[in-house]
Amino acid sequence: MKVLIIGGVAGGATAAARLRRLNEKAEIIVFEKSGYVSYANCGLPYYIGGIIENKKALTLQTPASFKKRFNIDVRVNSEVLSINPKERTLFIKDLQSGKTYTESYDKLILSPGAKAIKPALPGIDSDKIFTLRTVEDTFRIRECIERQKPSSAVVVGGGFIGLEMAENLIQEQIHTTLLQRSSQVMPPLDYDMACQLHAYLRSQGLDLRLNSPIASYEEMADGIKIHLKDGTALETDMVLLAIGVSPDTQLAKEAGLTLGAKDAIVVDEHLQTSDKDIYAVGDAIQVSHFVSGLEAVIPLAGPANKQGRIAADNICGRQSTYQGSQGSSIIKLFDMTCASTGLNEKTAQAAGIKYDKVINFSPSHATYYPGASDMTIKTLFDTETGRILGSQIVGFDGVDKRVDVLATAIRGGMTGYDLAELELAYAPPFSSAKDPVNMVGFVIENILEGRVKQYHWEEIKELPQDGSVTLLDVRTESEYREGALAGSINIPLDSLRENLHQIEKNKPVYVNCYSGLRSYVAFRILSELGYCCYNLSGGYGFYEYILYDKSFDDTARHGCGVKI
Amino acid sequence: MKVLIIGGVAGGATAAARLRRLNEKAEIIVFEKSGYVSYANCGLPYYIGGIIENKKALTLQTPASFKKRFNIDVRVNSEVLSINPKERTLFIKDLQSGKTYTESYDKLILSPGAKAIKPALPGIDSDKIFTLRTVEDTFRIRECIERQKPSSAVVVGGGFIGLEMAENLIQEQIHTTLLQRSSQVMPPLDYDMACQLHAYLRSQGLDLRLNSPIASYEEMADGIKIHLKDGTALETDMVLLAIGVSPDTQLAKEAGLTLGAKDAIVVDEHLQTSDKDIYAVGDAIQVSHFVSGLEAVIPLAGPANKQGRIAADNICGRQSTYQGSQGSSIIKLFDMTCASTGLNEKTAQAAGIKYDKVINFSPSHATYYPGASDMTIKTLFDTETGRILGSQIVGFDGVDKRVDVLATAIRGGMTGYDLAELELAYAPPFSSAKDPVNMVGFVIENILEGRVKQYHWEEIKELPQDGSVTLLDVRTESEYREGALAGSINIPLDSLRENLHQIEKNKPVYVNCYSGLRSYVAFRILSELGYCCYNLSGGYGFYEYILYDKSFDDTARHGCGVKI
Repeated sequence: MKVLIIGGVAGGATAAARLRRLNEKAEIIVFEKSGYVSYANCGLPYYIGGIIENKKALTLQTPASFKKRFNIDVRVNSEVLSINPKERTLFIKDLQSGKTYTESYDKLILSPGAKAIKPALPGIDSDKIFTLRTVEDTFRIRECIERQKPSSAVVVGGGFIGLEMAENLIQEQIHTTLLQRSSQVMPPLDYDMACQLHAYLRSQGLDLRLNSPIASYEEMADGIKIHLKDGTALETDMVLLAIGVSPDTQLAKEAGLTLGAKDAIVVDEHLQTSDKDIYAVGDAIQVSHFVSGLEAVIPLAGPANKQGRIAADNICGRQSTYQGSQGSSIIKLFDMTCASTGLNEKTAQAAGIKYDKVINFSPSHATYYPGASDMTIKTLFDTETGRILGSQIVGFDGVDKRVDVLATAIRGGMTGYDLAELELAYAPPFSSAKDPVNMVGFVIENILEGRVKQYHWEEIKELPQDGSVTLLDVRTESEYREGALAGSINIPLDSLRENLHQIEKNKPVYVNCYSGLRSYVAFRILSELGYCCYNLSGGYGFYEYILYDKSFDDTARHGCGVKI
Repeated sequence: MKVLIIGGVAGGATAAARLRRLNEKAEIIVFEKSGYVSYANCGLPYYIGGIIENKKALTLQTPASFKKRFNIDVRVNSEVLSINPKERTLFIKDLQSGKTYTESYDKLILSPGAKAIKPALPGIDSDKIFTLRTVEDTFRIRECIERQKPSSAVVVGGGFIGLEMAENLIQEQIHTTLLQRSSQVMPPLDYDMACQLHAYLRSQGLDLRLNSPIASYEEMADGIKIHLKDGTALETDMVLLAIGVSPDTQLAKEAGLTLGAKDAIVVDEHLQTSDKDIYAVGDAIQVSHFVSGLEAVIPLAGPANKQGRIAADNICGRQSTYQGSQGSSIIKLFDMTCASTGLNEKTAQAAGIKYDKVINFSPSHATYYPGASDMTIKTLFDTETGRILGSQIVGFDGVDKRVDVLATAIRGGMTGYDLAELELAYAPPFSSAKDPVNMVGFVIENILEGRVKQYHWEEIKELPQDGSVTLLDVRTESEYREGALAGSINIPLDSLRENLHQIEKNKPVYVNCYSGLRSYVAFRILSELGYCCYNLSGGYGFYEYILYDKSFDDTARHGCGVKI
């Protein structure tokens, strides 16, 4: 058996190694357009920022090491120009010698990945505009920083690469502006969760400008000028364009393979394309979303690696199936961690799924043990069954643990009741006896069983202002004085029972505290006494970030710091 | 409704607060024998070592704060002398005034906890021997350290409290010896996993003496002498006795409640005792083990808290059930973390469950990103279904995350196949594209599908020495030279294909490398070529810790460092 693989990173490299382990005698050839194989794709931004110091750490695997260990023929600098599915051949160009040749296959695996999106804007081809996808891109950017010592940079796009690049540029003492077309960075988060990240990034020195679509680029003698659609402009020394990626599927298209959304390659559960001898894996394929069941394109390293393994299994006769991706992702930005898994509100709404949501605010571990920090967890669940649909977490220490527990729970089809029962490992340096994930379960359980009714920050502005409802803030007086919901009265929780006479019984009471915990206790007291109550999900603390974000945005877009 | 609760920590305090949230009008009284309520039980050792500096951090809750927030009457220094289930009354002694009185109940919750075991050895009542269970015990030990400035201490017992105390005493610059009756510390681990902990603790300055049962204690003018059963003795300034706890159920016994194993209180799934008006929670009860289904006593804070919530639910009419404990536990010792969940080999064997096991050795995150450290994961699975039965992890960073993912997988009844498919959140600072838990799944899957056959370290000594089998070490030459299995030949993996002629085809080949990963690749090469192979689970690196432990023990027991 002769297997050819197009693409030697993540999915392609995994497939090659797995193929060899399953079949010692197969002939396996990997074609990689870039000069590197199986490189540390996700580590590239950290080399630019100097966190990863050694070039070699990024490129541990070489064609020679693949040959030695796996007897696999890896051909770098080798561009596949076309696929001929009928003849089962590839037409390849050696980019160093310029020579072209043909190679036949019994089975072909496509792992071409995705390419950085470059919008057709005037000036986009300036060599002061960089994209980051390959090792070569990385070295180019690093070299530019080392040689030209830019004092400012603009990152365009607030996804994973854009944010990681912004962090690493700031680490290099470069004044960095991030331009984001929409009102939030980090698309896997909902807007309300992203607000905390916005505030944090600004506190770390990032000049973050939301709602700032670009009209054109203009190269200058000593830099590049970016014209925004709102008529303003800013000058900078270099631009890092990171507005997203799209499946690199021109070859597949020309070969007549069926493409789906975003021109991603359509595969079945065995990762077989519309041609039975061609499999496809990684960022270039369309998958079904594990939670919604809808078709999706989810370019992440974890799924790519798993798919590589599965494609190899199927080629070697093992009926292995891919169950879909759930979009588990995580990013470290300075000391903050943002993570998500499953559906967020945007994707749940797009899928037409009926959900409810809870916001939890929990310390990373027992607060009496030093070093605890708070995290915010937003969890969506199915209102009928309580099944967990997705979760987003923003915080510092311990965020990665909770998102993985929630990702596992989602994989297992678990409900809020199940989260309440999870027996996680507790000691003071690591957690609390009631882990943040248990707390998520407790709140969902309380909602499903009618022990608490919530209201959300989006509803605050719709509350009647005519005195027909009571807004009750149960925080301490000093907390209340520093900022509270307009029209709310303050009765601290610990004196609520003595002050019930201040609350009219025939009016609905909208209770809030800072996080939703004290107000839940107040809710229970009041509702046991016959009041009709609603508890502000996430509390005033959550809402405050949204207020801050909305107020900041306009100022920030016209603030100083970058030459305008 | 009037509810009395005996015990105001963990389970008792949780039950009280939950009761109030569910029923604003109930009369709730909590009796706590010690002077403190809802204190930070698991934080006590860290106050002794000075990591938690403020006394108040341990005792944030007070009777006054409980009264204010929950309208609960908490009576500290109040010992319940007897329960009269027929009359539904308690007979209580106020330990400060000496007064006794009776209190009636509609429902009673027992949360008496466990007490430190004190064996009936000569000299055991010396006031230089301390136990640690309450806040008072903690202050007593801290005061002894501050006033008497002991230069040496002996900890007896290598469970959670003993180990945490040893760490904290060493942090205080006190020369610390730990005496352990059996051949290992940390009972939730199997011996082979504990060996790594033993080596690490010794490297941190702990004088660890295994297999060292004590015969008697003898108080001296300036210290205390400990006579071991092997005839040796050692002198020290103070002894911390931490050989375990037993359910504190004398009251329950006298009240005629049914007791089970270790005199723990028998409860049904609603946590109801043999008396329908009495519920019991926490360290004092017998639970069913979530994985084995067997009766067990599992004194841990997480389960105690969940049980408190469930008892309150049932009392308030919500049919809530406890599904059993799985013994998820974790401990930080200096920078090392040891964790476990579910069954280990000892408990699986006791339960008569047919299992197989895999040992994985994985970096905590992508090795090209700074700060990665290795962890060892031992996982037991059902040989028929692949269901995960339990897991133990020893390592540094990221151990807490993996044990919680595995604990969640166990709760969800997941198999090794499911672990392979888990989509966990990956970025270089947090994990690898193939997370350590995925790797566990991959190995289990390979075993279940016959793609690899293992042998374990216990079997090494049983391998025939007559030349009828080949022991093949596929590490590099330099690794091999530093120590290898007796009788093994060395062919590094990357030159295996050229040296096949050195391996006789008609003999079984027992392959090993350092961790089991390279030898798995060798296994696949050889077995594809018709060899009969076995792969050493965990590799030579795992076995080396066991060899080291066995060789160390005897020397350590008679080493210097403590006055003999």
